[in-house]
Amino acid sequence: MRVNNVKKIWAEGGAVVNGWLGIPSSVSAEVMTHAGFDSVTVDLQHGLVDYQASVSMLQAISTLDVTPMVRVPWNDPIPIMKALDAGAYGIVCPMINNREETEKFVGACRYFPQGYRSYGPARAAMYAGGDYASEANDNLITMAMIETLESLGNLDEIMSTKGLDAIYVGPADLSISLGHPPSADPTIPEVVEAMDTILAAAKRNGVVAGSHCASGDMAKRLFKKGFQFCTIANDSRLLAQKAAEEISAARG
Amino acid sequence: MRVNNVKKIWAEGGAVVNGWLGIPSSVSAEVMTHAGFDSVTVDLQHGLVDYQASVSMLQAISTLDVTPMVRVPWNDPIPIMKALDAGAYGIVCPMINNREETEKFVGACRYFPQGYRSYGPARAAMYAGGDYASEANDNLITMAMIETLESLGNLDEIMSTKGLDAIYVGPADLSISLGHPPSADPTIPEVVEAMDTILAAAKRNGVVAGSHCASGDMAKRLFKKGFQFCTIANDSRLLAQKAAEEISAARG
Amino acid sequence: MRVNNVKKIWAEGGAVVNGWLGIPSSVSAEVMTHAGFDSVTVDLQHGLVDYQASVSMLQAISTLDVTPMVRVPWNDPIPIMKALDAGAYGIVCPMINNREETEKFVGACRYFPQGYRSYGPARAAMYAGGDYASEANDNLITMAMIETLESLGNLDEIMSTKGLDAIYVGPADLSISLGHPPSADPTIPEVVEAMDTILAAAKRNGVVAGSHCASGDMAKRLFKKGFQFCTIANDSRLLAQKAAEEISAARG
Amino acid sequence: MRVNNVKKIWAEGGAVVNGWLGIPSSVSAEVMTHAGFDSVTVDLQHGLVDYQASVSMLQAISTLDVTPMVRVPWNDPIPIMKALDAGAYGIVCPMINNREETEKFVGACRYFPQGYRSYGPARAAMYAGGDYASEANDNLITMAMIETLESLGNLDEIMSTKGLDAIYVGPADLSISLGHPPSADPTIPEVVEAMDTILAAAKRNGVVAGSHCASGDMAKRLFKKGFQFCTIANDSRLLAQKAAEEISAARG
Amino acid sequence: MRVNNVKKIWAEGGAVVNGWLGIPSSVSAEVMTHAGFDSVTVDLQHGLVDYQASVSMLQAISTLDVTPMVRVPWNDPIPIMKALDAGAYGIVCPMINNREETEKFVGACRYFPQGYRSYGPARAAMYAGGDYASEANDNLITMAMIETLESLGNLDEIMSTKGLDAIYVGPADLSISLGHPPSADPTIPEVVEAMDTILAAAKRNGVVAGSHCASGDMAKRLFKKGFQFCTIANDSRLLAQKAAEEISAARG
Amino acid sequence: MRVNNVKKIWAEGGAVVNGWLGIPSSVSAEVMTHAGFDSVTVDLQHGLVDYQASVSMLQAISTLDVTPMVRVPWNDPIPIMKALDAGAYGIVCPMINNREETEKFVGACRYFPQGYRSYGPARAAMYAGGDYASEANDNLITMAMIETLESLGNLDEIMSTKGLDAIYVGPADLSISLGHPPSADPTIPEVVEAMDTILAAAKRNGVVAGSHCASGDMAKRLFKKGFQFCTIANDSRLLAQKAAEEISAARG
Repeated sequence: MRVNNVKKIWAEGGAVVNGWLGIPSSVSAEVMTHAGFDSVTVDLQHGLVDYQASVSMLQAISTLDVTPMVRVPWNDPIPIMKALDAGAYGIVCPMINNREETEKFVGACRYFPQGYRSYGPARAAMYAGGDYASEANDNLITMAMIETLESLGNLDEIMSTKGLDAIYVGPADLSISLGHPPSADPTIPEVVEAMDTILAAAKRNGVVAGSHCASGDMAKRLFKKGFQFCTIANDSRLLAQKAAEEISAARG
Repeated sequence: MRVNNVKKIWAEGGAVVNGWLGIPSSVSAEVMTHAGFDSVTVDLQHGLVDYQASVSMLQAISTLDVTPMVRVPWNDPIPIMKALDAGAYGIVCPMINNREETEKFVGACRYFPQGYRSYGPARAAMYAGGDYASEANDNLITMAMIETLESLGNLDEIMSTKGLDAIYVGPADLSISLGHPPSADPTIPEVVEAMDTILAAAKRNGVVAGSHCASGDMAKRLFKKGFQFCTIANDSRLLAQKAAEEISAARG
Repeated sequence: MRVNNVKKIWAEGGAVVNGWLGIPSSVSAEVMTHAGFDSVTVDLQHGLVDYQASVSMLQAISTLDVTPMVRVPWNDPIPIMKALDAGAYGIVCPMINNREETEKFVGACRYFPQGYRSYGPARAAMYAGGDYASEANDNLITMAMIETLESLGNLDEIMSTKGLDAIYVGPADLSISLGHPPSADPTIPEVVEAMDTILAAAKRNGVVAGSHCASGDMAKRLFKKGFQFCTIANDSRLLAQKAAEEISAARG
Repeated sequence: MRVNNVKKIWAEGGAVVNGWLGIPSSVSAEVMTHAGFDSVTVDLQHGLVDYQASVSMLQAISTLDVTPMVRVPWNDPIPIMKALDAGAYGIVCPMINNREETEKFVGACRYFPQGYRSYGPARAAMYAGGDYASEANDNLITMAMIETLESLGNLDEIMSTKGLDAIYVGPADLSISLGHPPSADPTIPEVVEAMDTILAAAKRNGVVAGSHCASGDMAKRLFKKGFQFCTIANDSRLLAQKAAEEISAARG
Repeated sequence: MRVNNVKKIWAEGGAVVNGWLGIPSSVSAEVMTHAGFDSVTVDLQHGLVDYQASVSMLQAISTLDVTPMVRVPWNDPIPIMKALDAGAYGIVCPMINNREETEKFVGACRYFPQGYRSYGPARAAMYAGGDYASEANDNLITMAMIETLESLGNLDEIMSTKGLDAIYVGPADLSISLGHPPSADPTIPEVVEAMDTILAAAKRNGVVAGSHCASGDMAKRLFKKGFQFCTIANDSRLLAQKAAEEISAARG
Repeated sequence: MRVNNVKKIWAEGGAVVNGWLGIPSSVSAEVMTHAGFDSVTVDLQHGLVDYQASVSMLQAISTLDVTPMVRVPWNDPIPIMKALDAGAYGIVCPMINNREETEKFVGACRYFPQGYRSYGPARAAMYAGGDYASEANDNLITMAMIETLESLGNLDEIMSTKGLDAIYVGPADLSISLGHPPSADPTIPEVVEAMDTILAAAKRNGVVAGSHCASGDMAKRLFKKGFQFCTIANDSRLLAQKAAEEISAARG
């Protein structure tokens, strides 16, 4: 099976810089793939992207050896199964609250007997190679989002779930869950502390900690704390920011 | 007819900051439209965009009062007609060499007797309003690209063509035409002088001078020289640049 | 936040004429948007429309100040979340049977603590403006469909659910639920009475009553009764009817 | 080869009611196909439709035994060849001015030696049947639009071109060519007389006369005069008209 | 209502050769439809196909009188409802484990009171005819997949569910469920026996037995055993196999 | 610049087995790319494929190191320029008749001063690498189709055109041009001899000879004769053939 670079970097103790795709286009996906990320994630939750667009985006990501991942819209076996069959090497699942939900999520990513994923890796077997059936359970990443109030009370039961590889902080939802306005780069102490608590729990449970970040600077900060997977904004945010900067320069 | 902001800015002696769309998606188009440009141009020539995608991109541009334009792939009446019917308020036409080609281009943008455009403004009449038929000839912008060796010898005959509103420099092709490697922000004196010569001819002939630019800084420089329409790179270039900057910050 | 015209009309005691989109095209969506409706709803349930098409349709609706809404296919948080992120200002949810289902529906439309909607209004924030995060809970419409036998027994518990703004009658399913053939403009007394009962319950509970209608005439009748939100057929039905009328005239 | 119903109706002296598709959707195409037209034409000129959309629209038309036709955007062999390969049974070609252009058009529709069409009827052979190669030259309809000033002076040389089956009046462009505002149902005597002149020339040259019409009533009028192929508006116009009528009824 | 050929063949004791579509294209769908299958199934589970693509694929299937079916991704009322509304004449539902799930599945396919399907057969009524509302419950096929360990223990309770027409074996998942590597044409005795056991249960309960097959040869074998519905691989598999064969011949 | 495998194989005196894509889908394109071809060509002429689909198909081809090529619909600079910008490493141009047309074709594939291609390799520079601008003229393949009667009289003037790399026989059109029914594997002596004559002229002029073939067997025969580039049918033909074979096996 083609190597999962994210797992490899983690195994070596390294940190992954991840790109995030919310524009439903294989062209912007290929541009992002060439930008230098270690992995690129198609966002089926808040991205303006549906499954069919994600297939061609995953093809675009496959033009280089950058690891393709998918954030599914919800803890639902349909989008998880379809993303994996389309060649995703990792699934980010939002809004995980407890052990039961974690098991439902992880089980959807694994073939029997580790889980209940149905067999039919249409594109995945082309992308990964002929031994996909036997190797997939060990090589596909499961990443549970920690962003709800309930999950903060269940960190260990979530993170100790067998088969869970990593957790992923959603700072905006986490802020809201703690009673604050959504922030992509939280500075309110309560939220910052919650992120530290989550990181500590991840370390304690032997799962990788990841987070969404507002910028490269924030990613750098989190890497220093021990996060090993940081996403920088998303494609449409990067585009909007750069366009505004250049317009300002033109008019300045 | 809905006002053509670009014409209005020009009439007031102002300068237009133009966005350029090469990603075939109405989502990136809407993001660019909200970034603050005066006009946004769908690039059917070197953009990875075909007519059908351009229709939804023109719809996305229409969500704000930003002037929609199209660069057609060639001096061909089919893409010109279809872009105008789809609601473009201006056409940028590449590779214009002489008077005959300019007349062919301008004629494709005007209804009889000023030109030979066929009637059927399917979307344009919705966007522009009920008086489109009678007002279109006076309000749609024709912009001829000056970028070939032949055109440099025919500046006045091109620019004095009745019905031509503006010219547009393509620095990369102009560089190649003068025997140099393509450059988006030329520094080779021969190319810089050619651009100045083109600008002077435009002023002399009473047409607006525009140019593609590599950056906001270059646009600012050209505005100072007297250019009144500057495009800043394009969406995929902006995206690639910003992504690389942020990745570098994350890893730095 | 951009004003929600439907809420505004209701607040003034007025009645909303709503268009309904079942053709998966941003072009027909834009045609309908220009026809004069107060709001236009993309039908993800029985329309031949999926999420990705709905995004470009919502963009087309945004070219005018007509309120965009979405009927989701089922009481499921995925399509609700994605429709709201794409800019819908109201959600029509089918097949609501009881209080629990109503709360599940309403909660999916509201950010914590009023609900459990995840944060990431990708397109909504562009469309609505920068204060979307703080204003969305108060401005997005929740409309529960009353069309099943079970719901008829639970009208007050459904309609008194905190956060529910309106109910919407589906006459065809209501007819079937009462043991009759589906009718878009029911004349069977039992169905007509059920609609009156639903309307009375809505008035009693302070929520707006809406209904699908077979025609403008039916809408007019229902408006007189006190309904304040009436949909007229849908795009494909209107197209089929008009085409048949004109063919008949041509052949007559 | 599957029978060309339009040719069959013409051979019997009958008149064809034709539908016109400008919405780029196979769903609206199927709705129109079921409405009762004898033939349905995909409009690649002023419709908001490109080739790729037309393929799925031609498939939708093929779900019933309604004859599929295409109006190409211009007298260009590329769209003609591609429309025929995709299964069109007739081509309407705009802006024909003289004999030379007519021969260029007709030749693009016929295999050697009658013309210069390239062989490769990818979908056409599936739709038409195994004998397509030998039968296509005799069964595909060529219809030249008469709408320019120049063409009015060349009616006989155009209409006597070998291989031309029919002509088609574009009333709006014809109005403009005669110095009047575009009208879909011309009442200005000069335009009405021009249409009569065209009809007479068609009769004289043994080709069928067709016309675009604003309504079923206009089609009925033209049928009485001797036209044998009348189009009623197009899908988006029908939709817009019906929606406005019903909204008016609802508000009335 | 247009006849359901699959039901008709079954009623006559015959066997159905079914095609399977995993390529999201109406063009490959039409090619497959013309190949000679009795029915063609769009695979929304492991095929790289989403709902919107399936609509145009169902249109392509409707160009011939080949029965259109859909395999939904999961036992979920949304994809079932939408596939039926789009014109599917049968639903294959994966991963059915017990009576409760079977009833949930069958109910989603039937209007009240036999089920809880919501009314709005947008395309189905065009395809099937005007009496769809009254005839659909009797004519649409429900086919439950037997492929999990749990289902093997519940064969009779599943197959005796009122309203279930047929079962469908998924050999690959069945192999996995029994602890073996996935095989499209199982030779391991335990799996072969399980398939025989399933067939016997189907016969005993008066439902039709179907199965996915790796090849025409396997289908022939299963038909002899008494299966009456066999799918041959899928489109992408057939394409890959034939391409490899011909490349080998070219290089041989 | 990424190596052009086709040029490399030719330089080594080898023969290229080429796949041909007529289904407008990146999924079938990826399946074909994995089948073992040396190069894969998107057919924009007779394939049911337009530019926009070709972009995602070229991305799918780029997931492996298989050389991507495009057959353009006609000798027109627009599709040639756009195919090259999208990353095609070679262009097959149909219906070349003489030296003038060959020069027009070759010039469209080369930057100034070798040709008149406009600069803007949006996707090509990502695929090929940073030195694309300076290396493209030497590395992109130009292949002129020989299939018309006129071209048979101009073989040397066509093949000696500076910048032409190869010619490509279209056996079906060649058959028609010689007065015979179209045949994908001609056996009529006059056509076979014409193919031999073309091959001899190619050898004499130092250009590579290629041909469309009906099967792997035909490719093998032509390779033996000295052809160095043979296409095997196309995707939809392979699919149709294999499906028919397997259905026959199932029913046999």
